[in-house]
Amino acid sequence: MSPAQKTFRGYAVTDAKKWSDFTVVEYPSKNWEETDVEVAITHCGVCGSDVHTLSSGWGQIETPIVVGHEIAGTAVRVGSKVKGIKPGDRVGVGAQIGSCYSCNRCKSDNENYCAKMIDTYAAKYPDGVRTQGGYSTGIIANELFVFPLPDGVESKDACSMLCGGLTVFSPLVRNGAGPGKKVGVVGIGGLGHYAVLFAKALGAEVYAFSHSKSKEADVKKMGADHIVNTDPGFEKKLQGELDIIISTRDASENYPLSEYLHMLDVHGKLIIVGIPNEPLPPLKAFDMIPNGSFIGGSHIGSKKEAIQMLELAAKKGIKPWIEELPMKDVKKAVEGVHNGKAHYRYVLTQDLV
Amino acid sequence: MSPAQKTFRGYAVTDAKKWSDFTVVEYPSKNWEETDVEVAITHCGVCGSDVHTLSSGWGQIETPIVVGHEIAGTAVRVGSKVKGIKPGDRVGVGAQIGSCYSCNRCKSDNENYCAKMIDTYAAKYPDGVRTQGGYSTGIIANELFVFPLPDGVESKDACSMLCGGLTVFSPLVRNGAGPGKKVGVVGIGGLGHYAVLFAKALGAEVYAFSHSKSKEADVKKMGADHIVNTDPGFEKKLQGELDIIISTRDASENYPLSEYLHMLDVHGKLIIVGIPNEPLPPLKAFDMIPNGSFIGGSHIGSKKEAIQMLELAAKKGIKPWIEELPMKDVKKAVEGVHNGKAHYRYVLTQDLV
Repeated sequence: MSPAQKTFRGYAVTDAKKWSDFTVVEYPSKNWEETDVEVAITHCGVCGSDVHTLSSGWGQIETPIVVGHEIAGTAVRVGSKVKGIKPGDRVGVGAQIGSCYSCNRCKSDNENYCAKMIDTYAAKYPDGVRTQGGYSTGIIANELFVFPLPDGVESKDACSMLCGGLTVFSPLVRNGAGPGKKVGVVGIGGLGHYAVLFAKALGAEVYAFSHSKSKEADVKKMGADHIVNTDPGFEKKLQGELDIIISTRDASENYPLSEYLHMLDVHGKLIIVGIPNEPLPPLKAFDMIPNGSFIGGSHIGSKKEAIQMLELAAKKGIKPWIEELPMKDVKKAVEGVHNGKAHYRYVLTQDLV
Repeated sequence: MSPAQKTFRGYAVTDAKKWSDFTVVEYPSKNWEETDVEVAITHCGVCGSDVHTLSSGWGQIETPIVVGHEIAGTAVRVGSKVKGIKPGDRVGVGAQIGSCYSCNRCKSDNENYCAKMIDTYAAKYPDGVRTQGGYSTGIIANELFVFPLPDGVESKDACSMLCGGLTVFSPLVRNGAGPGKKVGVVGIGGLGHYAVLFAKALGAEVYAFSHSKSKEADVKKMGADHIVNTDPGFEKKLQGELDIIISTRDASENYPLSEYLHMLDVHGKLIIVGIPNEPLPPLKAFDMIPNGSFIGGSHIGSKKEAIQMLELAAKKGIKPWIEELPMKDVKKAVEGVHNGKAHYRYVLTQDLV
């Protein structure tokens, strides 16, 4: 370990075959730089990506691995070159921990699309140190990936916004969600519940699509204007109606891709943020021709958008639907996500310090 | 036949099993309305869609069928409610012959996306009359689908612009092709050659992708700035570079879909206008995430865009690369398109009157 590193402790999976068994381990941080902020973690949300990664859906993992990329905490050390953050500030870190800082994308509020983007865990810093996530005591991150939390948003509420929220907020704002626009939300889980909350807060008319009747009361409370049960033929009344669809459920087997595309207005966009391990269902060019529609991807959001999202949450009093657990109950949380039991996001609270 | 109809004569396929055998037949026009223009046809381009339709790639056809939807001619009768066209004017008709005329799309220069769009052939007017195309003496169309041809563009050059040209021009302008933008064109056939010509005329930097080395000299003459041979690995030097890709080749088997998506800049768009009979190659959500890219469709263009395109062609002196044949040689033309021998568009000239 170099003198510029420090040690954190976190709940790690140490045997890739036992994806939901956690052990507390010590591991080294990145090497400190004067553009960095050290965050003492108070809360960490549990994201579907954490479960995908641990259960190896996205490829083999190197152990020990500490996941978690919906981090809130307190800035305890602030580099001399950092602007806008001071020790003691409440701050958050999301799913990205690094980029090149110099390309056109990094310089145009598109650092979330930098070709050298570094994931918050299961990746490596340029110096070879492994990135480890937020089910832990702390993290060190470049200021570009540290977001100040406004007074109006509690840390427990903010943390899961920083991946789950931002992943839907960014495509909503980039594709014009607002007054006069109709936004569909497919799948009402962690991301979907944020898509409903934010699309509504942005002023759009919201259509929530779900095959789970049990969630209807919740979705109404979240503010959806219309709740559409995805029984066969569900799309017929909405041909050409929607401007944007944010799809948060795994878009692979049995996914009614053509049906969603047909519900879009001219040049409407279906944004897939639920990332399946498998290819999407077969896509026919003819499905996109009658309305000139688009299917697209999106990768979290920029710092600028994270700040905009947090300000909107503060201004509109947006409260995510979360269930808090002490970090030692992480097994229950990841298994809950795996089994679709989250209503709608687990948030782990610090118990290692 | 009603008194409001008249008779045209055209080169028809009369036996669906003999897709390239043509016979001259007589057939009734649509019922005349005072919003209509009757066009005496002088030229008709031969489009890939004609061949797809005749060879039943898009479904069974009803015979006798007269195809052709790249029509130029002379207005010989003009309804009392028609504006901006008078008898004797040179005019054109493209791949769409009708719409509802009253929906939001029709009223916002998106009549090409009207849910009640009527194809120029192989469809039916609301009164039940079958639509028949332009390998014929004449056609009657609502003024919304009749485009005045400017002085600077000859009819032989204009006709194939009205489907082949407009199909690429519309997505180019709708997606911002112009100075400072990089536009890729995949497949240099009839549509692709128009995409190169128009993208260049609009001021974009043009990358032409082709697996046919024999076309390189042609593509350079058309004005492409870069010619990229699609050998394996061709995409590596262009990661994240392009703003728009117009794909005109059939995007099914062996189509490097991921490779094209990876060449797009942030939120870049791959527009598929080459319509395969089969589904697109498997699409992975991960292919669209690193750049937030989109894949989309497009359906010809609006009258407004047709006029804009023709004006641009007149102003910049754009000449499509065409081969003229008398209409009686239609078999040679459709078989030439089928066998990829068009360089780059066949235009049939009137020989029935």
